[in-house]
Amino acid sequence: MDTRTGLPVVGMVGGGQLARMTHQAAIALGQSLRVLAESPDDSASLVAADVHIGTHTDLAALREFAKGCDAVTFDHEHVPTAHIAALAAEGVKIYPGANAILYAQDKRQMRERLSALGAPVPRWRPVTTAAEIADFAAGLAGADSPAGWPVVAKAVRGGYDGRGVWMLDDLAAAEALVATGTELIVEERVPLRRELAVLVARSPFGQVAAYPVVETVQRDGICVEVLAPAPDLPEALAVGAQQLAIDLANALGVVGLLAVELFDTGTGVLVNELAMRPHNSGHWTIEGARTSQFEQHLRAVLDYPMGETSLAAPAVVMANVLGGEPGGMSIDERLHHLFAADPGARVHLYGKQVRPGRKIGHVTVLGDDMAQVRVRAVRAARWLQEGRQ
Amino acid sequence: MDTRTGLPVVGMVGGGQLARMTHQAAIALGQSLRVLAESPDDSASLVAADVHIGTHTDLAALREFAKGCDAVTFDHEHVPTAHIAALAAEGVKIYPGANAILYAQDKRQMRERLSALGAPVPRWRPVTTAAEIADFAAGLAGADSPAGWPVVAKAVRGGYDGRGVWMLDDLAAAEALVATGTELIVEERVPLRRELAVLVARSPFGQVAAYPVVETVQRDGICVEVLAPAPDLPEALAVGAQQLAIDLANALGVVGLLAVELFDTGTGVLVNELAMRPHNSGHWTIEGARTSQFEQHLRAVLDYPMGETSLAAPAVVMANVLGGEPGGMSIDERLHHLFAADPGARVHLYGKQVRPGRKIGHVTVLGDDMAQVRVRAVRAARWLQEGRQ
Repeated sequence: MDTRTGLPVVGMVGGGQLARMTHQAAIALGQSLRVLAESPDDSASLVAADVHIGTHTDLAALREFAKGCDAVTFDHEHVPTAHIAALAAEGVKIYPGANAILYAQDKRQMRERLSALGAPVPRWRPVTTAAEIADFAAGLAGADSPAGWPVVAKAVRGGYDGRGVWMLDDLAAAEALVATGTELIVEERVPLRRELAVLVARSPFGQVAAYPVVETVQRDGICVEVLAPAPDLPEALAVGAQQLAIDLANALGVVGLLAVELFDTGTGVLVNELAMRPHNSGHWTIEGARTSQFEQHLRAVLDYPMGETSLAAPAVVMANVLGGEPGGMSIDERLHHLFAADPGARVHLYGKQVRPGRKIGHVTVLGDDMAQVRVRAVRAARWLQEGRQ
Repeated sequence: MDTRTGLPVVGMVGGGQLARMTHQAAIALGQSLRVLAESPDDSASLVAADVHIGTHTDLAALREFAKGCDAVTFDHEHVPTAHIAALAAEGVKIYPGANAILYAQDKRQMRERLSALGAPVPRWRPVTTAAEIADFAAGLAGADSPAGWPVVAKAVRGGYDGRGVWMLDDLAAAEALVATGTELIVEERVPLRRELAVLVARSPFGQVAAYPVVETVQRDGICVEVLAPAPDLPEALAVGAQQLAIDLANALGVVGLLAVELFDTGTGVLVNELAMRPHNSGHWTIEGARTSQFEQHLRAVLDYPMGETSLAAPAVVMANVLGGEPGGMSIDERLHHLFAADPGARVHLYGKQVRPGRKIGHVTVLGDDMAQVRVRAVRAARWLQEGRQ
């Protein structure tokens, strides 16, 4: 409790853009987010009033940081579960808990748990040798793919934005990957129509609120666009996907946001990944939903009743701005041109140094027609990214 | 320019809720607002990363504050024009300039200038004696008001939220007020149907963007509700009011926001007051317009192209939350109840200590039906204010 305001203090471990945007949401709720950042130059450090410098793997730093916080949460999933459990045992309200975030940290445990829960997942198995991968591929062989190859290998821990995921075409590729010593699972390459995502928030009380299902467009394993709502999604499939996410949030005991990334196979969905924090697939909610995912996450970890999740416009598109090649037009100059070209584009910049491929911001466009809105969002992001349309 | 981000630094003099909400907008633009606050406990000080403590009447403090700012602006209108002019002469981009903000500081100069420009204003005159006030009242006498009284007296400088405005019923009241030594103007009491407001933003380049005309509902001289768009406003009157505000912004050379408060007499409008900063009548724009007034103000003072001003929903109502009597349910408990009662209400709390009558936050509701939206907004504000519906 902040004695100056009579309102709660939420601590967020990690100082990236998710903490930065959560701070914006905290301000409206009369709060000021407390941030544990690695550096005073981190995205959130640049804008928050209450920044502690420290590392998320340092239990003493976490313990000190948690003092005076009404709830502690995360802008990433890298805090060791042992630390989370230790703090919870000491009475810190820390969400999501160790028994939940585990499934966002460890893909093998996630796959095992989802399989046990009967949730739809791709065929998969843990592997330690190239022979096991080949054996798995052989088991997949069928009419679609006589050899079973290619298969998808994933690092059990630490992957993000396309890192830690490999498409293996043959035994030689499997042998090379296994030789790196990375702990792996393998999965079938799902013949997918597109990718979807569902975002839900769950409070300690157990209330769960689900956002509309969105389509996520990936390029090189990185999310580049999010379309809300997912176009041409049959109602039954949309409701089923939301119910799946709600069931998972309950079954895993998630508190805070849960993003469920899905493969749309055309006949149903399969769970690809889980994330337990504000998620790139939910950035559109800042303007595009009545309650942003960042406010919703704060409400969830503070056990406030959840906010309305309905769309603020018939069509909403979020496009990520990735760092382009250095040089050329400055980011400020690009912003001038974009604002002149599209006065309705909503820009979010994260205060990050531009590096090729790095997410440095996003743009959201709202409107009535998905095709038009998408063109505008993609064009706006390209302007910021490349300094040209 | 912030060398860490390559994006501009805006300094705002004053650490109230307007600076607090401008900081939220600055974050999206990749910036961090620099705030000159009186105290580390000011509304904006609680949430901003870059807070300087100092007083707006101290030229040396202003000069130090302005160093490294790409533009300097204000969350109030109390900075002496001589200081603004001095800084501008030293090369600081400080907006609005001394020659513009003068008309938001000094009601006599404002009335003189508006009269000279031919803008519609109530009948008025400067006065120094009670006899002059009585003489003015006698001059107003007509069919509607045989005696001319009551008349409205206004302090030339320093009034806000109903302070510095007096309704004078007779000579005795005039004598008592004049005896206080306050510099005064008097105006006719306009038989008004309602109050309206128009918000425009103007850039140094000269681009002006106008928001839809809103209705402002006052109680005891304090704005309690804002309805956007103003219900049942004839199109010609709406366009005329916007054009008036645009003309005034141009004529006065305003850079940044200009709020024009209007009396709707049923047959036309009269200008009541001018403000040159983010304004209470524009808080609805945070969710209710494509571009919030806070972002628009930043875009204006940085000479970015203006953002789209269109409504995000057919009906938007903002209701102020005033401090209630101390004691009773805590603000945090009230928030729980409100969120349970209306998951779609958008809450903004300013981090201020509750004092009776003090603006401590506002609530915005969006929807299709103005009457329903208004009921929800008023009820939500009352919950936060009184802990009951």
